Amino acid sequence: MKTQVAIIGSGPSGLLLGQLLHLQGIDTVIVERQSAEYVLGRIRAGVLEQGTVDLIREAKASQRMDSEGLVHDGFELAFNGRRERIDLKGLTGGKTVMVYGQTEVTRDLMDARAQCGASSIYEAKDVELHDIYSDRPRVSFIKDGEKVELECDYIAGCDGYHGVSRKTVPQDKLKLFERVYPFGWLGVLSDTPPVADELIYANHERGFALCSQRSETRSRYYVQAPLDTDISQWDDARFWNELKARLPEETAANLVTGPSIEKSIAPLRSFVAEPMKFGNLFLVGDAAHIVPPTGAKGLNLAASDVYTLYHVMRKNYQQGRSDLLEKYSEICLRRIWKAERFSWWMTSMLHRFDDDQFGKRIQLAELDYYTGSDAGRTVIAENYVGLPYEAVE
Amino acid sequence: MKTQVAIIGSGPSGLLLGQLLHLQGIDTVIVERQSAEYVLGRIRAGVLEQGTVDLIREAKASQRMDSEGLVHDGFELAFNGRRERIDLKGLTGGKTVMVYGQTEVTRDLMDARAQCGASSIYEAKDVELHDIYSDRPRVSFIKDGEKVELECDYIAGCDGYHGVSRKTVPQDKLKLFERVYPFGWLGVLSDTPPVADELIYANHERGFALCSQRSETRSRYYVQAPLDTDISQWDDARFWNELKARLPEETAANLVTGPSIEKSIAPLRSFVAEPMKFGNLFLVGDAAHIVPPTGAKGLNLAASDVYTLYHVMRKNYQQGRSDLLEKYSEICLRRIWKAERFSWWMTSMLHRFDDDQFGKRIQLAELDYYTGSDAGRTVIAENYVGLPYEAVE
Repeated sequence: MKTQVAIIGSGPSGLLLGQLLHLQGIDTVIVERQSAEYVLGRIRAGVLEQGTVDLIREAKASQRMDSEGLVHDGFELAFNGRRERIDLKGLTGGKTVMVYGQTEVTRDLMDARAQCGASSIYEAKDVELHDIYSDRPRVSFIKDGEKVELECDYIAGCDGYHGVSRKTVPQDKLKLFERVYPFGWLGVLSDTPPVADELIYANHERGFALCSQRSETRSRYYVQAPLDTDISQWDDARFWNELKARLPEETAANLVTGPSIEKSIAPLRSFVAEPMKFGNLFLVGDAAHIVPPTGAKGLNLAASDVYTLYHVMRKNYQQGRSDLLEKYSEICLRRIWKAERFSWWMTSMLHRFDDDQFGKRIQLAELDYYTGSDAGRTVIAENYVGLPYEAVE
Repeated sequence: MKTQVAIIGSGPSGLLLGQLLHLQGIDTVIVERQSAEYVLGRIRAGVLEQGTVDLIREAKASQRMDSEGLVHDGFELAFNGRRERIDLKGLTGGKTVMVYGQTEVTRDLMDARAQCGASSIYEAKDVELHDIYSDRPRVSFIKDGEKVELECDYIAGCDGYHGVSRKTVPQDKLKLFERVYPFGWLGVLSDTPPVADELIYANHERGFALCSQRSETRSRYYVQAPLDTDISQWDDARFWNELKARLPEETAANLVTGPSIEKSIAPLRSFVAEPMKFGNLFLVGDAAHIVPPTGAKGLNLAASDVYTLYHVMRKNYQQGRSDLLEKYSEICLRRIWKAERFSWWMTSMLHRFDDDQFGKRIQLAELDYYTGSDAGRTVIAENYVGLPYEAVE
């Protein structure tokens, strides 16, 4: 079996890369160890940057997103009894974000891939990457009990933090950067109308809270919780009460509660592996970096890696620009570190860190300054809608 | 002995307050435990915000500053082999800073006070504040062996972090906020021309460095150093070599070295005491708050407290606005916490913190983002020239 670009992982970044390359006439095969249903069962992010939206449109998988997705022109920061709106559209010269669940993006991209007839192999067991430093790398796996070998020019590792791609790299070639936060997010998904038209990020004495949404009828709420939280101790009533206690009074009064259809706790982590290219293996998205969810950068950062690798591959195959292959890592990392910074900063500014009275006052001064200054609001807005993609040239 | 406002401390904030009140016909007596010569011997800050400059002008003590002070339209951030200029004037609609030593400001204000005949008592021993919660507070001290009692309406505590004013306040009425940094600044003053026209703040692998100045012929340089640094181990040659190692190559090549005329190490601390009013005692400047010197906010923050207390007193005496006395603390603290934030942020972004690889990358991403974005540069510039004073009304 042969292809030009073997893509490991059928999450949104692998699928998006596959569609974009396909439209340029570049052949890909996606190898995924799980079933398509399993992949679609993951509950993930729901806020798309302008650049991610544009890329999904370029991949011709935007039809449902464009009709069902909710364009958000702003969001709110709640702190110290105040509510301050960040006018994304006004502060960034017209840029907005799109609220549309990652699950839906994945589904749309899977449908587009099925339509165009490109090959996806699900439930591939024992996936291994071989000879990544040679010009004939291979991917091997077991499919329906048979060993399969996939020869390719390049491998795109889109298989996430726990995937095989980064693990294949010799450890002495990786430089790792990490920050672990002493809390997690306890999240609930419910088929209730969102409490507000826009997202609300709340800094509260009891801890951070976020009012998010997936659609006009499906809400996603989070409260900061200790890492050792026993989720069985959190019935729906306790969750709703804790959420209300952290929201501005009028917001809490408007909150429509209902049975949770998913409830989970996720740790928060900042992580970057450098570099992102090893021979002919290119790491993409979570395989190379993780951000805490404050600021909604995870999926969007994966999309910006896809943008870079897409244009590197396009120019490599179509214009013979093999020099760009060597620049992939550097181009990606420049933007990644800025998004890591924003996510770390938003996390630091909005969460409760125990027993640091000076730090609490600094958080409130930071929120007071940044929401009260045109320049400060623009800093928040331009990072939230996504900084411009780095040129691939 | 009687006055309207007893001012404790003859540093720049006490003197500035005295001049401003004097010009409004409000009587003051300054009580200082040191000699005038001792006060003038302290080497301190040298960068004045626009608002501080305007206030010194309003106090009619600006003649020498206006002729000898150096107006700086910008400063530089050096990091990762790059030099990025912050165009203060262009980014803030014309605001600048003035390089003019705190010692000179103090001297000019002392001269102005001597000329107008207002009373200053130097070398006052055993200064004590009495009955601060009554409407007849008093200050007692020993002058030339005689016990003196000074009756007044109000006391302005302008006597710094170690002064008697804050110590007089019942401890259970104070809320203290503090952050101590694990390093200090080793500073050298030398009669050499500054290495550059503008200040240079350098983030370097070996630690922070700052190229500052007091005039066209007097330079002030600093390098980050461990708190337990033994200054006797730092001869001039070692200092200059360490400074050069932390500067961009071209800057180091241009550095003119010479004998140090002062060399000292100072710890870095963030500190705020809340509130700032206790009965008829008002804390001003360092008596209530300390910032690390990164960003040059110390003297300027004292000046903004002076601005507030000056207008509170003026409106109180002239318009009967005694309600404003109760607002002093709140008005001051709003701006103080923003300056504390800026000083803490600049300190965090520019210094070396041991063994935190993630933090180092975040520093560089922060410098990369903030110097590369119009909004980011404006955030730095508008804080550096000084945020607007809060209205006293």
